[in-house]
Amino acid sequence: MKRILIDMDGVLADVYSRLFELHKEVTGELLCQDDVAGKLEEEAFPLQRQWVMSAGFFRSLPVMPGSIERVRKLNEKYHVVIISLATEFPASLTDKQYWLHEHFPFITWRQIVFCGDKSLVKADILVDDHPKNLDTFEGETIMFTQPHNLYLTTRHRRAGNWDEIERMLL
Amino acid sequence: MKRILIDMDGVLADVYSRLFELHKEVTGELLCQDDVAGKLEEEAFPLQRQWVMSAGFFRSLPVMPGSIERVRKLNEKYHVVIISLATEFPASLTDKQYWLHEHFPFITWRQIVFCGDKSLVKADILVDDHPKNLDTFEGETIMFTQPHNLYLTTRHRRAGNWDEIERMLL
Repeated sequence: MKRILIDMDGVLADVYSRLFELHKEVTGELLCQDDVAGKLEEEAFPLQRQWVMSAGFFRSLPVMPGSIERVRKLNEKYHVVIISLATEFPASLTDKQYWLHEHFPFITWRQIVFCGDKSLVKADILVDDHPKNLDTFEGETIMFTQPHNLYLTTRHRRAGNWDEIERMLL
Repeated sequence: MKRILIDMDGVLADVYSRLFELHKEVTGELLCQDDVAGKLEEEAFPLQRQWVMSAGFFRSLPVMPGSIERVRKLNEKYHVVIISLATEFPASLTDKQYWLHEHFPFITWRQIVFCGDKSLVKADILVDDHPKNLDTFEGETIMFTQPHNLYLTTRHRRAGNWDEIERMLL
């Protein structure tokens, strides 16, 4: 059974939706995808670092559309491991696991990795939105399209949404 | 540079010292190592599960004698990664990282893995007190002696304390 690593933020958790909301609340300005495309989150949203460091940010993120049913199917065909570079934000760790248990209750605690370097983990496939994680991964890579990576020319296969992941892997 | 995985509980964190204290507080009975040797923690301390699930348990654990200076030295010679099966206790995750930052400030967030299965991680050496982790590891293994593993006959090299780890690895 092949092992697939699935990133959380920007793949399972819809971080941008929440950043758009917070930006609107704080500044009154309604941004759209074109306004932030091609920029890192911290470039697109000046207060991003403050928001993601605050308690509760990750606990309240919406789920990426279509992800729950597809991860459930992947979980039958692959050894699914959910992975997050969460040690960069220690206050987020417990929140992130409770969020996973709430939305993906079929993922057990044995299938979760919170770390600071995804290249430490042995797997066959990695689904991630960040080139820094994909570029150093030795197996098959799928770049999940998010505004920050929209204009990147990349050697990784791209999935624009969870329908495309299903077509690729199921 | 070889990569060495170092377990937290029972290797860096002196869990038994705290369990002895809590047992004394709750029952009035002062246990010694002979009373608990050869038993799993949950067998030796009937309230162990309740204690380890409670907030703050891991944040207050004493540091294993001699570990700080030896991990500092290992950190110069090896790629040190601190690992803990912490997703079994989600409430512990943030506590565990803050504990590490307090006592081992030279370990960065990039060198930490909290997971539910240590066999997912690529490394050359594993120092751990639990046979369940050591037995499935493909590299060099060192069993850190703790009361629960004291009478086990094992193929793993044993270290009774951090002086012995230093002689083996430094």
